[in-house]
Amino acid sequence: MASYGVLGTGIVGQTLAGKLAALGREVRMGTGDVAASKARTDAGWGAERLSTWLEANPSVELATFHDVIAASDILINATSGSVSVDVLALGDPADLDGKILIDIGNPLDFSSGDLDLTVGITDSLGETLQRTYPSLRVVKTLNTVTSAVMVDPASVGGGDHTMFVAGNHDAAKAAVTQMLHSFGWRDIVDLGDISGARGMEAMLVLWLRSRMTLDNAMFNVKLVR
Amino acid sequence: MASYGVLGTGIVGQTLAGKLAALGREVRMGTGDVAASKARTDAGWGAERLSTWLEANPSVELATFHDVIAASDILINATSGSVSVDVLALGDPADLDGKILIDIGNPLDFSSGDLDLTVGITDSLGETLQRTYPSLRVVKTLNTVTSAVMVDPASVGGGDHTMFVAGNHDAAKAAVTQMLHSFGWRDIVDLGDISGARGMEAMLVLWLRSRMTLDNAMFNVKLVR
Repeated sequence: MASYGVLGTGIVGQTLAGKLAALGREVRMGTGDVAASKARTDAGWGAERLSTWLEANPSVELATFHDVIAASDILINATSGSVSVDVLALGDPADLDGKILIDIGNPLDFSSGDLDLTVGITDSLGETLQRTYPSLRVVKTLNTVTSAVMVDPASVGGGDHTMFVAGNHDAAKAAVTQMLHSFGWRDIVDLGDISGARGMEAMLVLWLRSRMTLDNAMFNVKLVR
Repeated sequence: MASYGVLGTGIVGQTLAGKLAALGREVRMGTGDVAASKARTDAGWGAERLSTWLEANPSVELATFHDVIAASDILINATSGSVSVDVLALGDPADLDGKILIDIGNPLDFSSGDLDLTVGITDSLGETLQRTYPSLRVVKTLNTVTSAVMVDPASVGGGDHTMFVAGNHDAAKAAVTQMLHSFGWRDIVDLGDISGARGMEAMLVLWLRSRMTLDNAMFNVKLVR
């Protein structure tokens, strides 16, 4: 069975790695400096202190980005959109060859005080990753919901809502769709090639506004057709 | 009962004006040159030839933008996003004072070959109109669906999906919400002040991609929470 390498130790990384481990998958979690990450006493937004989380998830091995990229069959980009390209550069290029990268990142830019996307809407983080690492098989998904909903869609409206996927490789999308099914996703809409990531990333503007209006992150959209 | 002035004679203008007339409302339709518009033998994308449409909708009076702005209580911006600001400048400034403008426009820019928004996602057409004409009461709505769905939400999934509104004036949003109810909209989410238009306009990126994937424009999103 394919092993997973979750890149990133924040709330998204912890949630995804924890769910995959609970499903009995082999999971590694990547970070920049293993000793420093384990020694940190603070926690990222919404996340647990990493050492506490690792104790609760003993099957998940924390390793460097390089080693996780080397050892895992399927990679999950759970790093901030602003550093995702650089994190993948820490892997041996040969270790990216033909590998699936599930891109959950959002290229958020709040430097103006308002939400903007670093790549605008005529490009996307998903396309940037695919273009930069052409041997990877990038599949964009899950970036449109909060992490708790990513791994437990039934927690909102009984799970009657939609997840999107986009990517250039049909076999990679099929593998990712299988993972989404294992999380409980039932309505998965294939937006075509990786440029479909633009729609999913632009969705964040409406997501953030809805988050403010609802005062709650436990929501998603259903594509009614 | 409030009279409506629909600015624009394309498919969106025809659909909105036709529905409001069918509901028994007083409706005017604005254009740049009345004689030229009536003489046109071509039709805009998806629209009927205007002379044919006017014959089928005899209660709707075609007049200049200036006269429609002067005579109507509630204005509806159904012009292309690229010309909306200029069209409102054709009105007498005194005729805009305190008037509701329902902004359905999308600031689409395909000049790069890809969908971009002329205002980016840190601004919106709705905000631009409100900023340029501060005496107007701009309410953004309906831009997230195809025109047939705007006036007949039940045509998709029995009407079980969501319309958004955004604007700075609560009374104006209440009046627009009443109009939406008369069209059959049941789930109307208030995204707050007019900057909520950013989320609704950015939604177009996902809308366009979904349109391609589904090969059908009869869809909408439901905000499941």
